[in-house]
Amino acid sequence: MINFKPVEGFRNFVRLIDQTQLPEEEIYIQITTLEQMEDAIKRLVVRGAPAIGIAAAYGLVVHINPFKEKIGIIKEFNKAFEVLKSTRPTAVNLFWALERMKKYFQKLIETESNLETIKEKLFQEAVKIEEEDYQMCLEIGEHAYSLMKDKSEINAMTICNAGGLATSGLGTALSGFYLAHDRGKKIEVFPLETRPLLQGSRLTAYELLKSGIKTTLLTDNMAGALMKSKKIDLIIAGADRIALNGDSANKIGTYQLAVLASYHKIPFYIAAPVSTFDFNIKTGNEIPIEFRSRDEVIFFNSKTQTAPLNVDVFSPAFDVTPASLITGIITNKGIFYPPYNFKTLK
Amino acid sequence: MINFKPVEGFRNFVRLIDQTQLPEEEIYIQITTLEQMEDAIKRLVVRGAPAIGIAAAYGLVVHINPFKEKIGIIKEFNKAFEVLKSTRPTAVNLFWALERMKKYFQKLIETESNLETIKEKLFQEAVKIEEEDYQMCLEIGEHAYSLMKDKSEINAMTICNAGGLATSGLGTALSGFYLAHDRGKKIEVFPLETRPLLQGSRLTAYELLKSGIKTTLLTDNMAGALMKSKKIDLIIAGADRIALNGDSANKIGTYQLAVLASYHKIPFYIAAPVSTFDFNIKTGNEIPIEFRSRDEVIFFNSKTQTAPLNVDVFSPAFDVTPASLITGIITNKGIFYPPYNFKTLK
Repeated sequence: MINFKPVEGFRNFVRLIDQTQLPEEEIYIQITTLEQMEDAIKRLVVRGAPAIGIAAAYGLVVHINPFKEKIGIIKEFNKAFEVLKSTRPTAVNLFWALERMKKYFQKLIETESNLETIKEKLFQEAVKIEEEDYQMCLEIGEHAYSLMKDKSEINAMTICNAGGLATSGLGTALSGFYLAHDRGKKIEVFPLETRPLLQGSRLTAYELLKSGIKTTLLTDNMAGALMKSKKIDLIIAGADRIALNGDSANKIGTYQLAVLASYHKIPFYIAAPVSTFDFNIKTGNEIPIEFRSRDEVIFFNSKTQTAPLNVDVFSPAFDVTPASLITGIITNKGIFYPPYNFKTLK
Repeated sequence: MINFKPVEGFRNFVRLIDQTQLPEEEIYIQITTLEQMEDAIKRLVVRGAPAIGIAAAYGLVVHINPFKEKIGIIKEFNKAFEVLKSTRPTAVNLFWALERMKKYFQKLIETESNLETIKEKLFQEAVKIEEEDYQMCLEIGEHAYSLMKDKSEINAMTICNAGGLATSGLGTALSGFYLAHDRGKKIEVFPLETRPLLQGSRLTAYELLKSGIKTTLLTDNMAGALMKSKKIDLIIAGADRIALNGDSANKIGTYQLAVLASYHKIPFYIAAPVSTFDFNIKTGNEIPIEFRSRDEVIFFNSKTQTAPLNVDVFSPAFDVTPASLITGIITNKGIFYPPYNFKTLK
């Protein structure tokens, strides 16, 4: 199983693996102040919606830890809440985790007079958020594993990083692969590099290798050739938002990977926790797509130039895979198949 | 029209644009010795089968230029011939151009006694090779243009670099776009970046922009999203080898681009000179595929690390697009449509 934690929380510090330095260097940094946590989330030292939520929850605990007066603790909690909330605009789990901590904090303040108990219980709540996330990853993994359990050898593909680094440690799209490996299946995973920010090669390849899974990297334009030349058993990608009809937004490239999978008759799954469903939108057409800066394409890793400086760039951060191209959606509450009906999840 | 020459030949030197430095710097280098030309071809200062052939032809001329004795000239010609022939293993045009020069040189030696006349005529033969290549590009361009002539606005895609930089100046896949632009069509070209060596972003985007064509770059995983979100009129890719049934080998990623084009009902063309046809092979299955070094994927531009050092890599240099996915093959002798019959070319 995966043997490292992207986020580890303590009463007076948080330890983060610095994802901006991967895979060249494995550097763990100790966060002891609110400013450091704010910076770490903004600079993508910690990334992936669940991991950000967990880091922010611990960030609240760490920030109030030194304060000794109830009034000061309340003031500082609210300050940290606001600061952390504004670090990233789209990560829903960030807001969700912060709100949950705030609600619990308010209850504690009303019912508990011992300040150390309040701090300890608040810390335990952050631990719970982390543990629940891990449990959710495990459940997704079990459902994903059910798709592989009858095979002794599995060749799988994935895109971007929906792995341990993006969560408490097992991931969504990758958790089934970790379980399969752990249970003795001969599994080889082919992650797509995932330009422009290369989360597939920098992060997914890193964590799969670190966990002992045979990993063969390919650039994004090699996916079709791989499908043609090797028997691929299944593809699992993550999701950023899922509409009521099953249309799923995920990292750019997911859509074309699904088209290629369909052409090659390879099962194509989306894996995501129930919190990824947006019950307010009927189809993927309603999912807004963020366009990213041309610099991300023109400069690799902010330093190496890859194209003429004056070129225009088409760079959507996400694309929407229509439900018709998705074999099934793997959630912590089971696998859903078309025609999709997510009523039981609501 | 395209306004620069990747290879320019003179009696006593050859001027090459250094393609290893593009697009960051436009450096022209003067080649005055055989050793320099050998090095330039080996280091990919000049690349693209036709451009290499032209450079080598001029290289022969430049090498024998200083010699004043017939016996010495013959000896030096043969030496240069052997040295240049061994610079690259697969570029057919290289061998073809060298053999043509040698045949002509042998005839000259037999029929002409004035050494300066021999040198001048040999130089003119190299010029002819270049001019014929340009003519061939122009013919391919005219046929490609015929596909666009009824449109006032054209959105086109291409992959890798089958452009002016790879030839005497107009290219194969790109020549139709240059003609369309020159004739007042509102054309926008979307080149795929083409990992791992980024010939699409480094070279195609460079030469299109330099020629005044509106150019919008995308990474390889954005092709499907572009096809879904924007009306693309046609795609033209180059080819390295074409089998008798129309199966075409080209830069890795061409196959999946053709699959995506087929799914989105976008016409997908291959453009290549007649010399690209291999009349000895019936289908693409007989085309050997070269696998490249993992370092090309793991290090961008030989310097910036993009993935864990110990990861395995799946990195074919080419893939084969089956004829069934190709709308038509644009050659200097016209456009061929399925079912393919290339007898007239033989």
